Amino acid sequence: MLVDLRRDTITLPTEKMRERAFAAPLGDSVYGEDPLQNQLEEYAAHLLGKEASIFLPSGTMGNLVALLTHTQRGEEVILEENAHIRTSETGGIACVAGLMVRTLRGEDGLPEPQAIENAIRPDNIHYPRTSLICMESSHYRYGGIVPPLEKMRAVKVLAERRNLSVHLDGARLFNSALYLGVEVRELAACADSVMISLSKGLAAPIGSVLAGSREFIARAKRFRKMLGGGMRQTGWLCACGLEALSPENIARLAKDHRNAKELAIGISRVPGIKVDLAKVHTNFVVAELEGDVSSETFLARLKEKGVLATRVDAKRVRFVTSRQVDENGIRYAICAVEEVMKETAD
Amino acid sequence: MLVDLRRDTITLPTEKMRERAFAAPLGDSVYGEDPLQNQLEEYAAHLLGKEASIFLPSGTMGNLVALLTHTQRGEEVILEENAHIRTSETGGIACVAGLMVRTLRGEDGLPEPQAIENAIRPDNIHYPRTSLICMESSHYRYGGIVPPLEKMRAVKVLAERRNLSVHLDGARLFNSALYLGVEVRELAACADSVMISLSKGLAAPIGSVLAGSREFIARAKRFRKMLGGGMRQTGWLCACGLEALSPENIARLAKDHRNAKELAIGISRVPGIKVDLAKVHTNFVVAELEGDVSSETFLARLKEKGVLATRVDAKRVRFVTSRQVDENGIRYAICAVEEVMKETAD
Amino acid sequence: MLVDLRRDTITLPTEKMRERAFAAPLGDSVYGEDPLQNQLEEYAAHLLGKEASIFLPSGTMGNLVALLTHTQRGEEVILEENAHIRTSETGGIACVAGLMVRTLRGEDGLPEPQAIENAIRPDNIHYPRTSLICMESSHYRYGGIVPPLEKMRAVKVLAERRNLSVHLDGARLFNSALYLGVEVRELAACADSVMISLSKGLAAPIGSVLAGSREFIARAKRFRKMLGGGMRQTGWLCACGLEALSPENIARLAKDHRNAKELAIGISRVPGIKVDLAKVHTNFVVAELEGDVSSETFLARLKEKGVLATRVDAKRVRFVTSRQVDENGIRYAICAVEEVMKETAD
Amino acid sequence: MLVDLRRDTITLPTEKMRERAFAAPLGDSVYGEDPLQNQLEEYAAHLLGKEASIFLPSGTMGNLVALLTHTQRGEEVILEENAHIRTSETGGIACVAGLMVRTLRGEDGLPEPQAIENAIRPDNIHYPRTSLICMESSHYRYGGIVPPLEKMRAVKVLAERRNLSVHLDGARLFNSALYLGVEVRELAACADSVMISLSKGLAAPIGSVLAGSREFIARAKRFRKMLGGGMRQTGWLCACGLEALSPENIARLAKDHRNAKELAIGISRVPGIKVDLAKVHTNFVVAELEGDVSSETFLARLKEKGVLATRVDAKRVRFVTSRQVDENGIRYAICAVEEVMKETAD
Repeated sequence: MLVDLRRDTITLPTEKMRERAFAAPLGDSVYGEDPLQNQLEEYAAHLLGKEASIFLPSGTMGNLVALLTHTQRGEEVILEENAHIRTSETGGIACVAGLMVRTLRGEDGLPEPQAIENAIRPDNIHYPRTSLICMESSHYRYGGIVPPLEKMRAVKVLAERRNLSVHLDGARLFNSALYLGVEVRELAACADSVMISLSKGLAAPIGSVLAGSREFIARAKRFRKMLGGGMRQTGWLCACGLEALSPENIARLAKDHRNAKELAIGISRVPGIKVDLAKVHTNFVVAELEGDVSSETFLARLKEKGVLATRVDAKRVRFVTSRQVDENGIRYAICAVEEVMKETAD
Repeated sequence: MLVDLRRDTITLPTEKMRERAFAAPLGDSVYGEDPLQNQLEEYAAHLLGKEASIFLPSGTMGNLVALLTHTQRGEEVILEENAHIRTSETGGIACVAGLMVRTLRGEDGLPEPQAIENAIRPDNIHYPRTSLICMESSHYRYGGIVPPLEKMRAVKVLAERRNLSVHLDGARLFNSALYLGVEVRELAACADSVMISLSKGLAAPIGSVLAGSREFIARAKRFRKMLGGGMRQTGWLCACGLEALSPENIARLAKDHRNAKELAIGISRVPGIKVDLAKVHTNFVVAELEGDVSSETFLARLKEKGVLATRVDAKRVRFVTSRQVDENGIRYAICAVEEVMKETAD
Repeated sequence: MLVDLRRDTITLPTEKMRERAFAAPLGDSVYGEDPLQNQLEEYAAHLLGKEASIFLPSGTMGNLVALLTHTQRGEEVILEENAHIRTSETGGIACVAGLMVRTLRGEDGLPEPQAIENAIRPDNIHYPRTSLICMESSHYRYGGIVPPLEKMRAVKVLAERRNLSVHLDGARLFNSALYLGVEVRELAACADSVMISLSKGLAAPIGSVLAGSREFIARAKRFRKMLGGGMRQTGWLCACGLEALSPENIARLAKDHRNAKELAIGISRVPGIKVDLAKVHTNFVVAELEGDVSSETFLARLKEKGVLATRVDAKRVRFVTSRQVDENGIRYAICAVEEVMKETAD
Repeated sequence: MLVDLRRDTITLPTEKMRERAFAAPLGDSVYGEDPLQNQLEEYAAHLLGKEASIFLPSGTMGNLVALLTHTQRGEEVILEENAHIRTSETGGIACVAGLMVRTLRGEDGLPEPQAIENAIRPDNIHYPRTSLICMESSHYRYGGIVPPLEKMRAVKVLAERRNLSVHLDGARLFNSALYLGVEVRELAACADSVMISLSKGLAAPIGSVLAGSREFIARAKRFRKMLGGGMRQTGWLCACGLEALSPENIARLAKDHRNAKELAIGISRVPGIKVDLAKVHTNFVVAELEGDVSSETFLARLKEKGVLATRVDAKRVRFVTSRQVDENGIRYAICAVEEVMKETAD
């Protein structure tokens, strides 16, 4: 048995997804002939409160298409210093979209609106034009924390006032909505475009959705094609996507949050482990190793006991809950952490 | 009933693909954990006679990743004037890869080696450096014709002599190999990298493969990730890909070629229709409308009779055979064409 | 003594330019404080019949700034197959501006309007959007020939009808105007933007001007700055530029044309040399070597006699007249060619 | 009379520059035929302790060419948060060079070597490859301060160890060398390439130089041409550049530093003005306005008295000394500041 708490990208499709996928009609989606892709794009737009949406092979492409569609070359984008778009999307924002990155720190995952406003470039030929603000919720690098809704709204208000576009990297937006107790569309309303992942906690095998205005999505389709995101018979994937977005499947995320909470509380009691419980908003738990033990040693020992987690840095590790690990797995993981810390303390 | 001869991208997965897909184990391919993606990448490399390969969501991405991996920004690529990379991939070669396009005409789908050699830029700061030659087989825009193998080999020889890389857009490479009566690896040997589509005639629902040297593929992975081609649980798709590359499935392409031939002969006898039978190499048939009838009218009338084909230009239409249309469909299509021409002649 | 007929880029500033330059007041042009740059930009705009213009360090930058200002990344530009922008500007159109190049052949330096119209891409996600047509007059690679004015006008008309922009690479536009017997502004009126060189035949040491609408030029300034074309105290150069654009200096180009004509006629009579006199429109003479002699040998022998010209290809050489060579130089050059051909015939 | 302390980019050429310029022989530098450009490129390389160098129209182009030459598209560059390359070069690093910017704060103008080392990306397909570190000395945005030489050396050592290139934006490198009491080549030795401005304090009207290894400069020439930095008869400018680099002219910078010091001390005694004298390293003085007066009001009042300075932000202004302002001008400026502060205090 393996208790795999490394990532929520390892989730396997549910039984219902498999059923719907294997019964799905198929067509050539590049020509708009895949019935389920059409249905998914319509439904996801509805769910997110936007006019239209497109299905894409990954969240990285969803973000990149959004960047290309919102901006013109040589403009500047404001984002949180450790936003996934800057840290982990292989530099596509600069290499493909030719955009300058202006980073600001936001401890809660979102820079202060005033700091954002100060970072907007004045009109001057020495400066690139600021044209876009990107937000991320939940914030991956900060342990799945959820920036306050009011702050997101304030950013949208200032963006409108200053004539900037806003994109929301919502790879785990349903986790954020659950934490905040709001509908995803309330979060999506804070941005002109929003990208959600169907894989990760929602468990579809492949795919993301980018939603926005009808006009925005019409232009985005060309960039999706250019990057190679025009797939053919997507019906199986889109059937899973539709099931991923079903109310029951979305509701299931609450389990991941409960499990993360339980795991956080459990290991926070283990001597030598520190967890900031106030930052366990969603399905991530970041644990700090006090004593001498390094992340590498800790993870290696844990693995010997069948529990997998991920290194953040030399003294911090990350556990991510998902449908691949149930309550028993969580309990087992807590015990395993206890044992490892006992052994390393010896 | 519809006899759909518009494109071979409409092909639906075979029963065997469905079986293999739905039985497939899954894993997170971004971390190399999808067992079938690994198996497919290994097998496809073997089949193509290359050291390694990667699975991607589309042929467009396969070509774009190849361009990015072979070149540095600001270099020049030599390709046939109507190569798919220039005509139909939304300008990614310039917009994403920053490459100059140097086009040469090749009536048989490939420019003359001498013309290619003449087009290589001398070393001069006014000129971009020529670094890559792209070939395409079969050639989409020229009705699926297959450039001569000897000519492809000659291009490879000159490329080596002049220190240029060669990429082969082999979206329909198995069709070419069948026409030439050689193994695909003999064609792939004419290039440093080769892209093949698993969809189209081979009928997998989604995906392409890019193959090359181990070192090339290692670098290509970063560009695949940057463009958003890193998908998660690809097992279903890769199971189909493996089945697509099975000897039986590849052998099935012969039917499409026979059907194309039969269709070509059939409609070439219809008064008012001209078909250059010598150019029916694979699964494409291009028909010219003599008389007054326009492509639009012709296609509309044909559609009323349940037969679909595609406009090439004002006086030419294209029929593409695939596993979606059997011999009866072909016979029916010939009759339909006859009737339409009779009606329009009245 | 050297009779340098290699290029007209070797021209040295006139005595009057030197006087005006050395008397020029200076200021920081990046902040709009160089009085002569302001004066030159205003005067050049007036001369070209445009609302505004900017001074730049080279024609290559003038063209590149125009491309960046007219387009958005990933669009397609239609130009003549051997336009300088494609052949000799180091691929900046793709590498910096991310634009696809669509080339068409035009024997007189400009493709047929109908061919241009046919090359405009239909609206389809597979295609880059066509957004710009570039013209070049006189046409450098075709021996300084001047495309017909009526044809240029027809291109402008179709561009307006199809909602495309037009840029005119007028590095030698004053030569064209002289040949056609029209004002430069009549040529400039065929385009939304026009670039002229102040160096070359007009003899200023450095610089070009890009002219267009006020709004276009306002945006162009940012791209000039981005590329590094914001120079500081440009007064000396702009004083030369103003003198270059004086009526007397422009009128002097007639001498270069007469000299080219005389040279062309003179050497066309030499056995073994062929010159298409009908193509000697401006200050270029292209000579074809009949017999066995190669361009290299011919030029080497000519150089021994103190006459310099340029290789076009293995059997063709180019002579370019400019203020660096007077009538006597021309006569001497004709004699030198005669002697070389006699010697090589022996 | 105007005492212009806004910028050192306003400097006019010296009498000696004018003399040398107007006596200069000229040639077509694009073909390597301008004798003084060749001489300047050789001399500047020697002065900077590098194998070769190129002359360019601006410092922005010098930096951009360096970025293009050191990197491949999609890589990441580490630089100080407020480096001129990020703040004030119109985003060319992303828009033209396609590079990700990784910013780190360095209070003394250079981030800590350890912070730089931590910011180097591990090898992972999610990350762009870190390939270049940029330093800036003196640091423009931080008031012309000079990062410690030892720290620069430490950065070079780590860069070599980690196989990264280093570029030094030395627009005002001679000011730094003067402050540190070392030869510029000692600073240049901390980098693989270095850009110096000939204008600014050194007073040439136009131009910068980029120096590096012979191989680096050979490749850089192509990018200079691509961006449009290939100018024609540069002799006048290069004559000024040679004079700018003469020992006497470089030595003159000491006056600017003395004037800056005197100005700083003078106005630091004025009630309501705060100057951090420890940060007056070179020819910049940044003054903070205490009390109620805003930068705008202060500068407007100062201008009425004939003294010009520049706004940094709402409460800070910048004075820059140069050969345009002598000791009397400095004394006058101090008096003017005193009077303005008295008036605004009333």
